[in-house]
Amino acid sequence: MTRLEQQIQFLVEIDKVKNIFRQTYLADGNRKENDAEHSWHIALMAFLLKEHVEEPVDVMKVIIMVLIHDLVEIDAATDKREREEKAADRIFGLLPKDQGIYFRELWEEFEAYETADAKYAHLLDNFQPVLLNDASGGKSWAEHGVKKSQIYKRNEKVEATSKSVWEMMQKIVQ
Amino acid sequence: MTRLEQQIQFLVEIDKVKNIFRQTYLADGNRKENDAEHSWHIALMAFLLKEHVEEPVDVMKVIIMVLIHDLVEIDAATDKREREEKAADRIFGLLPKDQGIYFRELWEEFEAYETADAKYAHLLDNFQPVLLNDASGGKSWAEHGVKKSQIYKRNEKVEATSKSVWEMMQKIVQ
Repeated sequence: MTRLEQQIQFLVEIDKVKNIFRQTYLADGNRKENDAEHSWHIALMAFLLKEHVEEPVDVMKVIIMVLIHDLVEIDAATDKREREEKAADRIFGLLPKDQGIYFRELWEEFEAYETADAKYAHLLDNFQPVLLNDASGGKSWAEHGVKKSQIYKRNEKVEATSKSVWEMMQKIVQ
Repeated sequence: MTRLEQQIQFLVEIDKVKNIFRQTYLADGNRKENDAEHSWHIALMAFLLKEHVEEPVDVMKVIIMVLIHDLVEIDAATDKREREEKAADRIFGLLPKDQGIYFRELWEEFEAYETADAKYAHLLDNFQPVLLNDASGGKSWAEHGVKKSQIYKRNEKVEATSKSVWEMMQKIVQ
């Protein structure tokens, strides 16, 4: 298979994330969003909110990271690490080796949650649902009986990553 | 308004592209895709297919370009240039000035279709629907009675931008 054929096989396979729906409603509250929509949204957030991050980040890398971070959900119905690892093997394995390894390493870095880039990616992954929940009148939070304390708990690492986003998040949740 | 507040206003506003549906069906043929899903897809394509482009491109810039290229459709129900310009004024005007100008210029560059970066962005914008149409058994082409000659016409600039993508496109359309 040529590199282009491998790349196309991967690009068609990942179309499936458009059918993986999340708990978050769109801002208009009419339906829940899917992983592709969510990833598009946080890629743009990555570019726009860079200036609010305490540590320097590699925005280009974070954008690619958030564009791929949910792909393993195509195979992993549960969030079990082992199944996600297998999903990563299969999905990133569709690509030419160099690109597959790069995406795999980015995903591992995201999951490990240690580097400034991964922390920024996680901040985006957490902040975007908060914005949509706020815009839709807290619909998803109400539906699941989510308490403020739970939202704070889920976002406890945000403060260290960006003080201004953390302040904004508190303002929204109040 | 602080910069972060402006950025959030923009990020919530652009959620609307998730409700702007295109003619292309998802690879599984079950429903049509929307602009957010399409933009996510071609942003990843931008990263992966760079090696096939004849002229050097700035991938980071192309990624941002394709992430924002359809935003003006939020206001522009028709494709009339004047309405798109007004939409661009309004939507990019929500952002802090520097970021709004950057997105506006990127969008103008995309529309002008002159630079290597814009040509690559257009190639991605055209190639992704071809991949999905192929995966869904040509569903959208059949629905609209699209002829091969029309597909070639629509993609006539692809060959100059990437010979290997152009060859692959011909293979798919045959």
